[in-house]
Amino acid sequence: MNIYHILEKKRDNKVLTNQEIEYFINEYVNGNIKDYQASAMLMAMYINGLNKKEIVQLTKSIMNSGEVIKLNDIKGIKVDKHSTGGVGDKTTLVLTPLLASLDLNVAKMSGRGLGHTGGTIDKLESIKGFHTELSSEEFSNQVNNIGIAVIGQTKNIAVADKKLYALRDVTATVNNIGLIASSIMSKKLASGSDVILLDVKVGTGAFLESISKAKELAELMVEIGQKMGKKVSAAITDMNEPLGYAVGNSIEVEEAIDTLKGKGPEDFKQLCIELAAIMLKIAGKEDNLNKGRKIAKENLENGKAYKKFEEFIEAQGGKITKFKKAKYKLDIKADKNGYLKKIVTKQIGEAALVLGAGRRTKEDVLDHQSGLMFYKKIGDKIEKNDLIATLYTNNKTTLKEAESLINTALTYSDKKVNKLKKVKMVI
Amino acid sequence: MNIYHILEKKRDNKVLTNQEIEYFINEYVNGNIKDYQASAMLMAMYINGLNKKEIVQLTKSIMNSGEVIKLNDIKGIKVDKHSTGGVGDKTTLVLTPLLASLDLNVAKMSGRGLGHTGGTIDKLESIKGFHTELSSEEFSNQVNNIGIAVIGQTKNIAVADKKLYALRDVTATVNNIGLIASSIMSKKLASGSDVILLDVKVGTGAFLESISKAKELAELMVEIGQKMGKKVSAAITDMNEPLGYAVGNSIEVEEAIDTLKGKGPEDFKQLCIELAAIMLKIAGKEDNLNKGRKIAKENLENGKAYKKFEEFIEAQGGKITKFKKAKYKLDIKADKNGYLKKIVTKQIGEAALVLGAGRRTKEDVLDHQSGLMFYKKIGDKIEKNDLIATLYTNNKTTLKEAESLINTALTYSDKKVNKLKKVKMVI
Repeated sequence: MNIYHILEKKRDNKVLTNQEIEYFINEYVNGNIKDYQASAMLMAMYINGLNKKEIVQLTKSIMNSGEVIKLNDIKGIKVDKHSTGGVGDKTTLVLTPLLASLDLNVAKMSGRGLGHTGGTIDKLESIKGFHTELSSEEFSNQVNNIGIAVIGQTKNIAVADKKLYALRDVTATVNNIGLIASSIMSKKLASGSDVILLDVKVGTGAFLESISKAKELAELMVEIGQKMGKKVSAAITDMNEPLGYAVGNSIEVEEAIDTLKGKGPEDFKQLCIELAAIMLKIAGKEDNLNKGRKIAKENLENGKAYKKFEEFIEAQGGKITKFKKAKYKLDIKADKNGYLKKIVTKQIGEAALVLGAGRRTKEDVLDHQSGLMFYKKIGDKIEKNDLIATLYTNNKTTLKEAESLINTALTYSDKKVNKLKKVKMVI
Repeated sequence: MNIYHILEKKRDNKVLTNQEIEYFINEYVNGNIKDYQASAMLMAMYINGLNKKEIVQLTKSIMNSGEVIKLNDIKGIKVDKHSTGGVGDKTTLVLTPLLASLDLNVAKMSGRGLGHTGGTIDKLESIKGFHTELSSEEFSNQVNNIGIAVIGQTKNIAVADKKLYALRDVTATVNNIGLIASSIMSKKLASGSDVILLDVKVGTGAFLESISKAKELAELMVEIGQKMGKKVSAAITDMNEPLGYAVGNSIEVEEAIDTLKGKGPEDFKQLCIELAAIMLKIAGKEDNLNKGRKIAKENLENGKAYKKFEEFIEAQGGKITKFKKAKYKLDIKADKNGYLKKIVTKQIGEAALVLGAGRRTKEDVLDHQSGLMFYKKIGDKIEKNDLIATLYTNNKTTLKEAESLINTALTYSDKKVNKLKKVKMVI
């Protein structure tokens, strides 16, 4: 077997065998296949596509290129969730303690943010003392004791994915459904959970804007996971407006805490309840979605979810105190009347990034205190001078650009506009 | 402008602008675009194709990435020919002195051989003392004095082509008509001649086996050349059997000398006469092809072409003496009766390579004395024990493999088989 012939096959739109895909991944990780050959292969895969069998094998080979974690030391049903990324997406912060409070075990690896979307680890690290460096024994013990632990993605998970992703990022081969699905699923499958809920975001703040593409990706990932013997479901959820109000790090943790106490923005609370009900169903805990919603809502409102969150944070060295605010603040007010019709939500994420809440490259250092509150939702009736958003930053010079990003992201209508439904489809 | 967006465009099968193609070539040569980005681009170009306007611009940009030679110091009409490569293709050795003897100026850059096809410079260097290192002044003076000079391709001609070709060679992106045409024509156009004759080989010994593909390539190259203001024609010529008998280096020079003296294998002599007539026509020297054939044949038979060859070789330090034969020799005889129906001609070239006449990689050193004589042509009636070929080598251990390559290359028929026509089409 050699890479030249495998390249010829995919170039000529032929189907690769499992052995050929395995060879490609293994030899690329070994360094025998060079970056310039892998990028040519990725471009051929992007243009000519991969069929389902190829995608399943690609996922498997990428998964096997690193450590495949067995969570044998953890009792009970291990659940995991993954979001394809959005603006103000603090779901993990609420959903995971909520699920743990409902007797599911959450043994989760999370990532950091890049570009206009944030990462769970960054958000959690805005809590004083919180750390994610647990040994695998500490990790297992913590899940067994309190039902939840979150660590950063270790370097030896899905090793090929890191190399491939870095290459795709600079060769215009990121946005391909098959490559995306194998990248996400290889990491999820290597993390060892039995039950996986995928939150596929769609809209102006997600990397996919079309429902049909989101559906294709969701179906594909569910199929991959099921073929690998896992219980998997996917929810396609709206990202045409920020989730909740807060976009940033400590600012999102505050909002997550409010929500865990039964308060918080309605759209975000509803999403957490919906996703919890779906998870309870696929994990075999509660087959009736309505009952699932009910018990999830109860645990948000009776303090059990928040209590679980506190236990989790304390177990990983954190202490929940009042967060210090950033030094500078700017209110943005509406300059006309109308119904909010459209939000270029990526720009809201971009504004938070500009203020200091995100990073453009992996090497950038972010500021946990910066971020923004975006108070309005699509369909809201807005009057001139209403407060639309508040910006927070420690770098005053960024306010102007962030303000402009917010203002140019919004479109108003004279006519009434419908509110958005959060969960569009469950697969 | 940035490479990411240009990659996206070609990936999505859009047409690149002249500026985008120029940017790609220039920044790749500068090193700002990396190999892994260039190979992704080449794969996208290969799969999605390039239109004629893109190919013309690609050719122009590659040409301009290195020195573009002006042959202003050389008087008269400067002609050049190019072969896409074949087995036993010693045409340049005969055609160029023949054209010089007919008052055309040949200021030629030639290449070395790789794989199963030989290179003119390698062949010429089997002549004692012959060298191709001429300063540009010496080069111009020699052409002005005797009408012919041949040098090796300088490193600073079409610089991008060398980088691109090396990359295409390891990423399965060689055999694309647009990329091939731009590679060949960028070098020919940079070499400065006014009139270019392209010999596009087709058949089992050429890299193109289909006439329709050869025609596509030939038409494309002619169009590119004409758009750049040159007089260009292409002959599609047969490569389903070796050209002449000799395949190697010194052994081909001997056969070329025979042909320059009016002898030599009939098929090869006819090809040289045909190509000379076409060149005389496009150069505006003799519009009537029959008259052109006549004067070309005369100069082969009256000694003028050979005299020009001698002048040329002497001007570049060479001295024509009897060539020393290789140490070992093996006759291959027919093991049955029949008409020769098919020759896998690549294997004949491969046999010569195995014997020592060629190189697999650019770094290999070749042996000028090795090679073979292949005496039979398609359609020849062959009797058992007829001499088919004679192998020559200085490395005895190679004889067996070469013999097997020859024997397995041949197919016989009981029925009469037509002889091949050398020139299939002129464009």
